[in-house]
Amino acid sequence: MSGTLRPVTEIYLDRLARVRAAMDAQGVDALLVSVGHDLPYLTGYHAMPLERLTLLVVPRGGDAKLLIPRLEAPRVDEQPGVFDLVPWDETDDPVALAASLIPSAGEIAIGDQMWARFLVELLPHLPSASYRRAVDVVGPLRMAKDQAEIDALAAAGAAVDRIAAELQAGRIPLVGRTEAEVSADLSARIVAEGHQKVNFAIVAAGENAASPHHHAGGRVIRDDEIVLCDFGGTMDGYCSDITRCVFTGDVAAAAPDIAEAYEVLHEAQQAAVAAAVVGTPCEDVDRTARGIIADAGYGDYFVHRTGHGIGMEEHEDPYIVEGNGLALEAGHAFSIEPGIYVPGRWGMRLEDIVVAGADGPQPMNRADHALASLG
Amino acid sequence: MSGTLRPVTEIYLDRLARVRAAMDAQGVDALLVSVGHDLPYLTGYHAMPLERLTLLVVPRGGDAKLLIPRLEAPRVDEQPGVFDLVPWDETDDPVALAASLIPSAGEIAIGDQMWARFLVELLPHLPSASYRRAVDVVGPLRMAKDQAEIDALAAAGAAVDRIAAELQAGRIPLVGRTEAEVSADLSARIVAEGHQKVNFAIVAAGENAASPHHHAGGRVIRDDEIVLCDFGGTMDGYCSDITRCVFTGDVAAAAPDIAEAYEVLHEAQQAAVAAAVVGTPCEDVDRTARGIIADAGYGDYFVHRTGHGIGMEEHEDPYIVEGNGLALEAGHAFSIEPGIYVPGRWGMRLEDIVVAGADGPQPMNRADHALASLG
Repeated sequence: MSGTLRPVTEIYLDRLARVRAAMDAQGVDALLVSVGHDLPYLTGYHAMPLERLTLLVVPRGGDAKLLIPRLEAPRVDEQPGVFDLVPWDETDDPVALAASLIPSAGEIAIGDQMWARFLVELLPHLPSASYRRAVDVVGPLRMAKDQAEIDALAAAGAAVDRIAAELQAGRIPLVGRTEAEVSADLSARIVAEGHQKVNFAIVAAGENAASPHHHAGGRVIRDDEIVLCDFGGTMDGYCSDITRCVFTGDVAAAAPDIAEAYEVLHEAQQAAVAAAVVGTPCEDVDRTARGIIADAGYGDYFVHRTGHGIGMEEHEDPYIVEGNGLALEAGHAFSIEPGIYVPGRWGMRLEDIVVAGADGPQPMNRADHALASLG
Repeated sequence: MSGTLRPVTEIYLDRLARVRAAMDAQGVDALLVSVGHDLPYLTGYHAMPLERLTLLVVPRGGDAKLLIPRLEAPRVDEQPGVFDLVPWDETDDPVALAASLIPSAGEIAIGDQMWARFLVELLPHLPSASYRRAVDVVGPLRMAKDQAEIDALAAAGAAVDRIAAELQAGRIPLVGRTEAEVSADLSARIVAEGHQKVNFAIVAAGENAASPHHHAGGRVIRDDEIVLCDFGGTMDGYCSDITRCVFTGDVAAAAPDIAEAYEVLHEAQQAAVAAAVVGTPCEDVDRTARGIIADAGYGDYFVHRTGHGIGMEEHEDPYIVEGNGLALEAGHAFSIEPGIYVPGRWGMRLEDIVVAGADGPQPMNRADHALASLG
């Protein structure tokens, strides 16, 4: 994706140089990354999430090595100057091999999603080492998206916007179908609109919408209720994520309490998007949404943070949450998704992806923000 | 699945009691499991693979607690007596909470696939603790499948057998299509045959088949070449995995070298299945297949282990590999999948899932083992 303008290898060389600078600045002697997204960010290669270890070892002062099971080596696009490929054989011990490449008393940064079994196996090899999370080294680089990455997020966002528009126009049947059927329908559309992978397609009707991470099930959607749809996928390596709610009837007539709460939610979401300007601490963006919802009396019903970063991963830094004082920078990409959840009755959430830019917040989603009445 | 005969909670109580006995025997003070399959094995709950920690904490001498993000708590089917649910809030520190529940100088077993970031965060909380892999505690229990689990593996195996039969009968078009198109076709059939999830659908034609973990791509399948198909999914929590090769022509006439090598492979695979009897060390099963292939002169072309365990996970203990002296027990389930790979020319593999039983090896796959000629 980001290779459209520059040779691919040059992108990885640049990222590796910036990682090494971060390692120097933080006193990190070695970086170890495996499954997860730091590895493709730095090399273009996705490790297979299996018991045979794939590990990129970046010593502060030496060449990077990509340890890989020999039978998976043909999958790797080699990037000259970025890493050397080190295939290991079925009876080798790749953890011992990794330990031999790094300082035994060093400060080691460990990839977030590496399987813990490999860290447990590494510990006795390096009894004097100390450990930190790789996200603290690589995360700040991954947070600041370049233009090619922003373009990728925009393309994925436009794809889910098209699905949201169909939903809001009543062209995705709801009443009489189960949540699971609608979820399968959304999943098929996510792929049809150009994503290679479906990440989730939450469909929650009525009282089920009060559970923010509801698993779409056998509940049949009825007339005159709210249906929350939160869906996204991965397109060319970057993620989409959108939430829109619709009402299967005339909401003003059938459920004035829902209509009233939605106005508050809509105002809170738009205010938080507007607050997401470069230099603003993440927690201030959260407070903007939360303040409006609390002032209207729904504070106890907004039970989660306002948003999460997004990029190669569905959820990544920066998190838009109380306690995160990080100031937004140009290129930071994140969701703004306040919600109101009344247990046993109904729930609602409104979500866009936004990129902080020099000219203000750039929305990656433009689907209508109103609560569509499908009466 | 295994709840068809006994109340579900009773199954988990039984498994937890056996885990506690293993902890006692191995001197493990606490077991921590998160994403991966130990958690559903012990509780029925799959953790969401996201940055909010879900963690089952089993102290040797106290009640088990399932720490969970509050907004995911409604997803859990509570199992009275198995665990207490401990929801944590957005601004809580779940790692500190976990550390407060376990002995600070204990021996802690860590779930294999837990994200390493959480172990890195835990280390400073417990400076005197020591760590081991949870697979050493839970793995031996998970390896020995009960009858309900074997039935689930058999059902999943029968489903992929039906797809293999279609392939061998020439009812899945190959010539003129890309590997990726055939892979998508196999994936759709995996779901249509009753799996909830596709785990992989490797399709590798001609010289591509020489790469055991080939990623199906744009290569168009031609006449008179071997096509290796290795596919499987998850059905009701248990995995299928089968490999069959077909030849797009008359193999005896067009490629006598392939026909000859396949006879060796077939003999090696059948011999290894026959060798997989209770009491036999895993490495002896590997040696049986490897000996036959080496004796025929193809030893350098069999570049991977003979097999892997299978169950809730695609790959789990026991591994059928040199160096694994573990003796097979009744209920152990694993693949037998020798291969011969000639770089740049062709590759072949033949794979069944087998369960070691009191009455000998029970195959979970019965699709024809011959190299089908589709000429």
